[in-house]
Amino acid sequence: MSVFLCGQWGPDEAGDWLSHLRRALPEETIADSLAGVDPAGIDIAVVANPPLGSLAGLPGLRLIQSLWAGVDRLLADRSLPPQVPVARMVDPAMNAAMAETALWAVLALHRGFFAYAHQQRQGLWRPLPQRRAGEWRVAVLGLGQMGGAVAARLQAQGYAVQGWRSADGPAALPPLLAASHTVVNLLPLTPTTRGLLDARFFAAMAPGASLVNLARGAHLVEADLLAALDAGHLSHAVLDVFQAEPLPIGHAFWSHPRVTVLPHAAAQTDPRSAAAVVAANVRALRAGRPLAHQVDRGRGY
Amino acid sequence: MSVFLCGQWGPDEAGDWLSHLRRALPEETIADSLAGVDPAGIDIAVVANPPLGSLAGLPGLRLIQSLWAGVDRLLADRSLPPQVPVARMVDPAMNAAMAETALWAVLALHRGFFAYAHQQRQGLWRPLPQRRAGEWRVAVLGLGQMGGAVAARLQAQGYAVQGWRSADGPAALPPLLAASHTVVNLLPLTPTTRGLLDARFFAAMAPGASLVNLARGAHLVEADLLAALDAGHLSHAVLDVFQAEPLPIGHAFWSHPRVTVLPHAAAQTDPRSAAAVVAANVRALRAGRPLAHQVDRGRGY
Repeated sequence: MSVFLCGQWGPDEAGDWLSHLRRALPEETIADSLAGVDPAGIDIAVVANPPLGSLAGLPGLRLIQSLWAGVDRLLADRSLPPQVPVARMVDPAMNAAMAETALWAVLALHRGFFAYAHQQRQGLWRPLPQRRAGEWRVAVLGLGQMGGAVAARLQAQGYAVQGWRSADGPAALPPLLAASHTVVNLLPLTPTTRGLLDARFFAAMAPGASLVNLARGAHLVEADLLAALDAGHLSHAVLDVFQAEPLPIGHAFWSHPRVTVLPHAAAQTDPRSAAAVVAANVRALRAGRPLAHQVDRGRGY
Repeated sequence: MSVFLCGQWGPDEAGDWLSHLRRALPEETIADSLAGVDPAGIDIAVVANPPLGSLAGLPGLRLIQSLWAGVDRLLADRSLPPQVPVARMVDPAMNAAMAETALWAVLALHRGFFAYAHQQRQGLWRPLPQRRAGEWRVAVLGLGQMGGAVAARLQAQGYAVQGWRSADGPAALPPLLAASHTVVNLLPLTPTTRGLLDARFFAAMAPGASLVNLARGAHLVEADLLAALDAGHLSHAVLDVFQAEPLPIGHAFWSHPRVTVLPHAAAQTDPRSAAAVVAANVRALRAGRPLAHQVDRGRGY
């Protein structure tokens, strides 16, 4: 039996993953194409945004291991074999990268660094009042592997952090939003959380508050965010993810003075650490041990 | 005997300091003007960038307590009474603010956030390779109260930090510069460090490296930095301090795509904590105990 590495990649990316996986799993046969391979001989698929339908013709499949933390797009593929276990990537280097991005965004919002960048473009010298970290209240939505890492990192810098997860229920959200200077979204994308960041959500946020969306573009109703920014109710948004990616040319976010656009770069899986995570799950499957980070396909993450 | 609060302030600043100092020192008489005050009755001056000569006519002066960490401008006043002890401000809230600013700058340089801001202005979607914090080597120049706080904070985030202080000698500097991705300057301004960041210094830095100057504008030869940036040798500079402040209208830094201008806002003294630091030194003087953070006027800090 063998391993099929399947994804849509940037240049050099597939080769990079292949060499890291082969080094981590020298005992396995790993191919990144089905050319000359018997599909029935593949029992493990290691996937990164695989093209729709690409896992449908593999009758021997026993594990789908994602290289990405978010599996919403994978699970949306209706041709995905329903009985095969799916495992998410939980990569410590990716969690650290996400914590870095969130910390950078919160520092910039708390200390006025986006405002100073705006002032620089206008040639304006104007120091802003300085607040202590402990006076800056941050809400972290989603407390899984990444949300948890973000909340812990922010707390370690002295920020007043409060978390919220879907299990806390929708009633707990408005008071938290009203009390927060910055809201950081790291929820998984599920039917419950899709479109959560909408006009009602923004209306519940405090005047002058800011949003950091590092989760999924489909969490956010983009027109509602633009309205909240343009009305002056929200002060700034840092966005790493969008309804359509790459963000289309001419989209209002590109040129909005109070929107910071990141090209879905908040946290990338690091092949050096992720290959070891894949290897552990491949060996668990081979040895009949329980899999790590298995997705609850009903819950969606 | 009484306390004279003397500085050049922004709006509301003098009143703010006065009320915090009066609350911290209810047993003292504190005035922020000499109107109706006997100059001979003043034995303590609490100063923030006092106008030249303002401490010359105070024959009873026994302590000059700065509200600022940097005393280079204060000591440059030739009318400063030579025998009176000068104490610097060491404010924990200011140290924390400086660590925040340095961390924000290093995170932005390490993770490409300044580059992404530049890409956003061009409407360009291009994720950059992601490096781990441990792969990012940061040199911190100056390991006093603020440099030490910065180095510790960066180290706690996993950065590969190395420090340098004047006492380490000039020979240790070029190898450190050559090995560093980012150089953060927090040296005190003294005759030895004035103009240290010059063409020779930049030539010793690694190609593509970046500079963060949070100390004093006179550390930096501005034309040499512009040349190093424009030659493509250095990738970016974050500058909080300048030869002339406010940075003059039309200065090349304002519009340079690889210079981030901050309006001397990296770390402000926080009156809430600083008033307690002043009070402790005032009471030490009254009780004949040793002063804290006394400046070595020969060394200049």
